[in-house]
Amino acid sequence: MESLTPQSTNFSEWYNQVITLSDLADKSPTKGCIIIKPYGYAIWEKIQSILDQKLKHIGYQNAYFPMFIPQSYLSKESEHIQGFAKECAVVTHTKLKTDNGGIILDPNSKLEEPYIIRPTSETIIWHTYKRWIHSYRDLPLKINQWCNVCRWEMRTRPFLRTSEFLWQEGHSAYEDYTSAKNDTINILKLYRDFGKEYLSIPFIQGRKTLMEKFAGAEQTYTLEALMKDGKALQCFTSHLLSQNFSRAFDVKFLDKNNELQYAYGISYGISTRIIGALIMLHGDDHGLILPPKIAPIQVVIIPIYSNIQELNMIKDYIMPYLDILHSLNISYHIDDREYFHPGYKYHHWEIKGVPVQIRIGKKDIKNNTVEIFRRDTMSKTTISNDNLPQTIIDTLSIIQDNIYANALHFTQENTFHVDDYDAFKDKILHNKGFISYPYNPEEEEKIKTETSATVRCQVIDDNGEILDTKRALFSQSY
Amino acid sequence: MESLTPQSTNFSEWYNQVITLSDLADKSPTKGCIIIKPYGYAIWEKIQSILDQKLKHIGYQNAYFPMFIPQSYLSKESEHIQGFAKECAVVTHTKLKTDNGGIILDPNSKLEEPYIIRPTSETIIWHTYKRWIHSYRDLPLKINQWCNVCRWEMRTRPFLRTSEFLWQEGHSAYEDYTSAKNDTINILKLYRDFGKEYLSIPFIQGRKTLMEKFAGAEQTYTLEALMKDGKALQCFTSHLLSQNFSRAFDVKFLDKNNELQYAYGISYGISTRIIGALIMLHGDDHGLILPPKIAPIQVVIIPIYSNIQELNMIKDYIMPYLDILHSLNISYHIDDREYFHPGYKYHHWEIKGVPVQIRIGKKDIKNNTVEIFRRDTMSKTTISNDNLPQTIIDTLSIIQDNIYANALHFTQENTFHVDDYDAFKDKILHNKGFISYPYNPEEEEKIKTETSATVRCQVIDDNGEILDTKRALFSQSY
Repeated sequence: MESLTPQSTNFSEWYNQVITLSDLADKSPTKGCIIIKPYGYAIWEKIQSILDQKLKHIGYQNAYFPMFIPQSYLSKESEHIQGFAKECAVVTHTKLKTDNGGIILDPNSKLEEPYIIRPTSETIIWHTYKRWIHSYRDLPLKINQWCNVCRWEMRTRPFLRTSEFLWQEGHSAYEDYTSAKNDTINILKLYRDFGKEYLSIPFIQGRKTLMEKFAGAEQTYTLEALMKDGKALQCFTSHLLSQNFSRAFDVKFLDKNNELQYAYGISYGISTRIIGALIMLHGDDHGLILPPKIAPIQVVIIPIYSNIQELNMIKDYIMPYLDILHSLNISYHIDDREYFHPGYKYHHWEIKGVPVQIRIGKKDIKNNTVEIFRRDTMSKTTISNDNLPQTIIDTLSIIQDNIYANALHFTQENTFHVDDYDAFKDKILHNKGFISYPYNPEEEEKIKTETSATVRCQVIDDNGEILDTKRALFSQSY
Repeated sequence: MESLTPQSTNFSEWYNQVITLSDLADKSPTKGCIIIKPYGYAIWEKIQSILDQKLKHIGYQNAYFPMFIPQSYLSKESEHIQGFAKECAVVTHTKLKTDNGGIILDPNSKLEEPYIIRPTSETIIWHTYKRWIHSYRDLPLKINQWCNVCRWEMRTRPFLRTSEFLWQEGHSAYEDYTSAKNDTINILKLYRDFGKEYLSIPFIQGRKTLMEKFAGAEQTYTLEALMKDGKALQCFTSHLLSQNFSRAFDVKFLDKNNELQYAYGISYGISTRIIGALIMLHGDDHGLILPPKIAPIQVVIIPIYSNIQELNMIKDYIMPYLDILHSLNISYHIDDREYFHPGYKYHHWEIKGVPVQIRIGKKDIKNNTVEIFRRDTMSKTTISNDNLPQTIIDTLSIIQDNIYANALHFTQENTFHVDDYDAFKDKILHNKGFISYPYNPEEEEKIKTETSATVRCQVIDDNGEILDTKRALFSQSY
């Protein structure tokens, strides 16, 4: 089995290798796109199912809008088109035909107006909201969509930046500015808490500068996380659109005083990029480390045997405990492949980041024990079978917390506070990490050019207010 | 509130109206595409979650492949490209630019090779299987994908035929022809049983003629259902691809005898079109009739009150029973909107096809009763509150069965057996329905031209064998 390049040797190479070796994704024949393999997709399904419940709980309803957006719609909000014009997949024809034995575009099938594959759906959704919103009784309107989107990128990296990616996009409309702003912050906090509880990711919550905000938003709020190479990754954004899209698409409603008003909007979303954060924040030189709450397989059982009778004995021995785990909603997998030796299997499931391995040999049956292997600490313990289900539950919970504690410790250790520009440049080039540095909008472009670092955000409190308006967090980023 | 055109007056108009009035879908600015509204999408989510479980249970794993298929891939299987060339969305450019204040295609962003938005994913998946399949140990390989696809259609109808639609596509690979063929039939039966149990649809199972099979398949198996206007709707297909795609994409594996062989493939899928079947097979002049097992709302509570005190009294009265229903996984909704009178609400939820209404007024509190309204029979009964939860459960189950029984009765009443061509033509033009008629491949084209009827299938038994090779089922169809 191939071994991984250490993170410290070449983080980027480590990242690409771990994705391949852990079976998260594969390359595709489409430029800038990946194939999300079953193991990677199962993580996305877990994230989807948890978030979908949370969003429904706060009143969101799922719907589906066409992926083809008429080109003219994209231009209706002037900042929006500027932001997306350079990365559009444009559909211009609808037929192919045979020509000299080859297949070519049928010129007669050219569309009068091209369609853009949605880079995001504000335009088509606000166009529709004009028909759905007439009175304050129609508000708030909270619609969510799970779908694919396309931003044709020049430099792509698996999960982090791909031409097509999967995401969830929430779009809501309100009667007044305050409700819209409050929900922009509330939804940010919902995702922050989800990140902490399920993904073991300590997010920094903040507001983007005007230079870094979403094209078409009044303000963009963000959750940023620090990866193990010291670069920041934007993991979630929520946008206070205010009346920008309601004005562009003429969405007015009769308010309680019977006066016509433009509705206020927000939008937000999380994408398959978050899988990149899980890899780069938690992973180590042995492979992935998956938080138990979103691991597709939480426990893998590796029987150590030399013939089929021994294998069956081991299975008989462990099965009653696995039934208990199953009834407790713990997912497990028995790796009984005959053509691999145990050492290969240990390594295989380490790379895949399965939180717990249960290793069982003949001796264990005699002693009424099993060996428990923890992926996060790479440590082994032999325990008595009597305690098995409870030990597994406790261990998974400890791992979940430990992964978070490690990530938090790492983020704190790599957050620096400097006031001097030379010190800032030195930190950003050598230590990387988050750097808190005085913020001056007029210097933002210069700093980006000189250091390639960008303002990730100005850190906010739970009310959405900037904690220190004079400072911002800078970082190299993905 | 608008009223529905009766089915007998204009079925097609009824269909479009019921979709709009029941809030299943809305028109979109994209030609041939619809917006699936929350109520319609919730039906799709129910179908998804049930089928997803069933597919995982038989070993399918979900994955995600790019929607952009290189144009050359589509042509690698010669029948396949012929089948799809005329209905492709072709991406040719990746940038827009400003020109004289307007937005135009950036000619410098023209792709060397255009991409086709997947009409189905056999080509990109079998291209990938070449990397995933090397040995018999890699087989069977069972991959499923929930996604959007695009077939640029000239004549579109909501749910039945839209340029973009949502579906599930299963693609599996096997060591030998028999396993592939057996699974083609097994998966057909799984969907047939799902249709009966959850959708209350009595499917006819059959094999397509070579003229009507999937472009690239050796054989296509189908589930057909008869709509209330006597036209057939193809609701599900499974394709025995045999070695067609493994040969086109060179997918070979070492078999148990250490010999290289091409893998055998199947594919199958169900789409949002199935929502059209639910509408057209079960609906009546009062609107939708949804089978309880896939109804987004199974029970709606309509309080009859003249002031807020009365509303609160009614809510207090019913709430303990609703808690019981909730604990039994029955979904309910209380329609307490103040600005609509009860008659409006009855009508509103009838059109939306909610299986059961519970109507409660002051008198009911005094009498310890509620009124139960059944959507399928449009009948009301007053029952004692003591029996409420059990009565609801029983009623939902009775409705589910009754809808199926009605659909089965309708299908049987409208299935005819004729041997004479004049009688055949008369039936197909006046009675419509399924018509069993002698099958001769050489007459298939002629019959289609003269009557616009097509062979829906040759009916098969549970082993996939044609029951009567000399006959086929003909019908007008969507």
